[in-house]
Amino acid sequence: MSLQPLDDRIVVRPSEAEETTASGLVIPDTAKEKPQQGEVLAVGPGRRAENTGELIPLDIAVGDKVVYSKYGGTEITVDGEDLLILTSRDVLAKVSK
Amino acid sequence: MSLQPLDDRIVVRPSEAEETTASGLVIPDTAKEKPQQGEVLAVGPGRRAENTGELIPLDIAVGDKVVYSKYGGTEITVDGEDLLILTSRDVLAKVSK
Amino acid sequence: MSLQPLDDRIVVRPSEAEETTASGLVIPDTAKEKPQQGEVLAVGPGRRAENTGELIPLDIAVGDKVVYSKYGGTEITVDGEDLLILTSRDVLAKVSK
Amino acid sequence: MSLQPLDDRIVVRPSEAEETTASGLVIPDTAKEKPQQGEVLAVGPGRRAENTGELIPLDIAVGDKVVYSKYGGTEITVDGEDLLILTSRDVLAKVSK
Amino acid sequence: MSLQPLDDRIVVRPSEAEETTASGLVIPDTAKEKPQQGEVLAVGPGRRAENTGELIPLDIAVGDKVVYSKYGGTEITVDGEDLLILTSRDVLAKVSK
Amino acid sequence: MSLQPLDDRIVVRPSEAEETTASGLVIPDTAKEKPQQGEVLAVGPGRRAENTGELIPLDIAVGDKVVYSKYGGTEITVDGEDLLILTSRDVLAKVSK
Amino acid sequence: MSLQPLDDRIVVRPSEAEETTASGLVIPDTAKEKPQQGEVLAVGPGRRAENTGELIPLDIAVGDKVVYSKYGGTEITVDGEDLLILTSRDVLAKVSK
Repeated sequence: MSLQPLDDRIVVRPSEAEETTASGLVIPDTAKEKPQQGEVLAVGPGRRAENTGELIPLDIAVGDKVVYSKYGGTEITVDGEDLLILTSRDVLAKVSK
Repeated sequence: MSLQPLDDRIVVRPSEAEETTASGLVIPDTAKEKPQQGEVLAVGPGRRAENTGELIPLDIAVGDKVVYSKYGGTEITVDGEDLLILTSRDVLAKVSK
Repeated sequence: MSLQPLDDRIVVRPSEAEETTASGLVIPDTAKEKPQQGEVLAVGPGRRAENTGELIPLDIAVGDKVVYSKYGGTEITVDGEDLLILTSRDVLAKVSK
Repeated sequence: MSLQPLDDRIVVRPSEAEETTASGLVIPDTAKEKPQQGEVLAVGPGRRAENTGELIPLDIAVGDKVVYSKYGGTEITVDGEDLLILTSRDVLAKVSK
Repeated sequence: MSLQPLDDRIVVRPSEAEETTASGLVIPDTAKEKPQQGEVLAVGPGRRAENTGELIPLDIAVGDKVVYSKYGGTEITVDGEDLLILTSRDVLAKVSK
Repeated sequence: MSLQPLDDRIVVRPSEAEETTASGLVIPDTAKEKPQQGEVLAVGPGRRAENTGELIPLDIAVGDKVVYSKYGGTEITVDGEDLLILTSRDVLAKVSK
Repeated sequence: MSLQPLDDRIVVRPSEAEETTASGLVIPDTAKEKPQQGEVLAVGPGRRAENTGELIPLDIAVGDKVVYSKYGGTEITVDGEDLLILTSRDVLAKVSK
């Protein structure tokens, strides 16, 4: 079973806490907004422009590692795996090595 | 009797809790936003662009299985069946197998 | 005496509770948003597009049976009959048999 | 002395309560939003479109009988007569006989 | 010293209470929104359209007598005279005799 | 060191209280919104139109004396001098003599 | 590891408090909004225009020294260094010497 997000939503598999630390990205406990890291599993077609209804494609692709704001997403369990459905606006940055 | 939704609204038949679990989609009890799964029975013509009034058609079709946010919809009983009227913005993702 | 609604407003005659049940549409008492059913008596010319001022006509016609959200409308008594003035955005769906 | 309303505002002379009842329009005491009836004495040139600044003329004319929401208007006394300055959006419907 | 208002702001010299009554315009003490009357001393160039940045000129000219909502303006004393800086949206109507 | 404001922001050097009184502009203590006077030291390129991203230049120039709303700005100390960063929307009027 | 911000977000390395004072920029303790100074390490491609989806490039470049509002950003630790992800709207001004 798979999820195809709508609009500008994406499906993200959150990184394990250990993996996050190993990759050099550490989320301080005291941060008010707690960003988290994960891998993008699926992306929606993009949101539609208010005026014309044309699709504005996302700058995020399947396989991207992203840092995202923890708030706003929806937790969902698919085939026993804990995933997140976010909107692209919850994504702060892409991570490369 | 049938319902023809207006604008970007859709009519959804919620999945039974048992069916949901069987298909591998489990909604954790602790999720703040509780998504749910259902089947689309009817779709509206789409919302109109603010500027021009042109219809922006929906990316959702009759027969789609969708995951939707539980909040925002309106419960309605048609011919003894419990249905939901949602706006398309309440739909997070389409589910395929 | 008759009412000609402005903008995207409509005038609705609410169905009797008995009639509602007979037609198969039942509004559960526990629903947070309580939709109701009625018949459209008059429709406004439509709202004007923000940018151009052009009229965007309504998808609702006189004689339509509609399901509408109970909130937002204004109760009015015309020639001894209790009617509602709604905006078209309060209308969730059209009902056909 | 006379008032020339700006933008989409109008000047309304509220009907006497007795007159209101005689014409068949009764405002129930229990209505949450209390609409009222009156005669339009003056209309503004219309509001300007957000994008272009062009005037969007009003669908209301001097002499119209209108039903309006009681809230949002400003009471003013001109030459000893109690009048209301409303925006056109406070007007729900025009009344004809 | 003089003030040149920006955008759609205007400078108004409020009428004396006595003058107001003499001209036939009386503001009831019980009005929730208290409109006031004054003379326009200076007008800004107009606000700029959101989309294009073009100026939308004001429908108010120097010398106009206006009725305005008391709220939203800023009191300022210029050369010992108490004036008000309002936006044009605070002006309800122009007064003529 | 100098500041180059972004968007429609400006840098203002607030007038001394004495200077303010001398120039005839007195801010009453009882005003709810307290406007203040100052000199413009730097102006941003302007804000970008929502639709097109084109720059809308400011109506404010370096050297202008302006009256501004005290709220909304950010105090900053540059080379020992107390300055304010405002957006152009906080400026009510330009002052000339 | 590096961060590539999305939309109009930027990555900033906050200046040390000592460095800030040395450069002549002092943030008073009593300021309601506390601006801070930092160096821009990465910039996003810009936000997309609401209507067309076209990119509006940022007026901020890598290497710029910026003054920014402390609120709204997200703290993140990359390779042991404390950085901030801001949107360009949190940046008040660029600093030059």
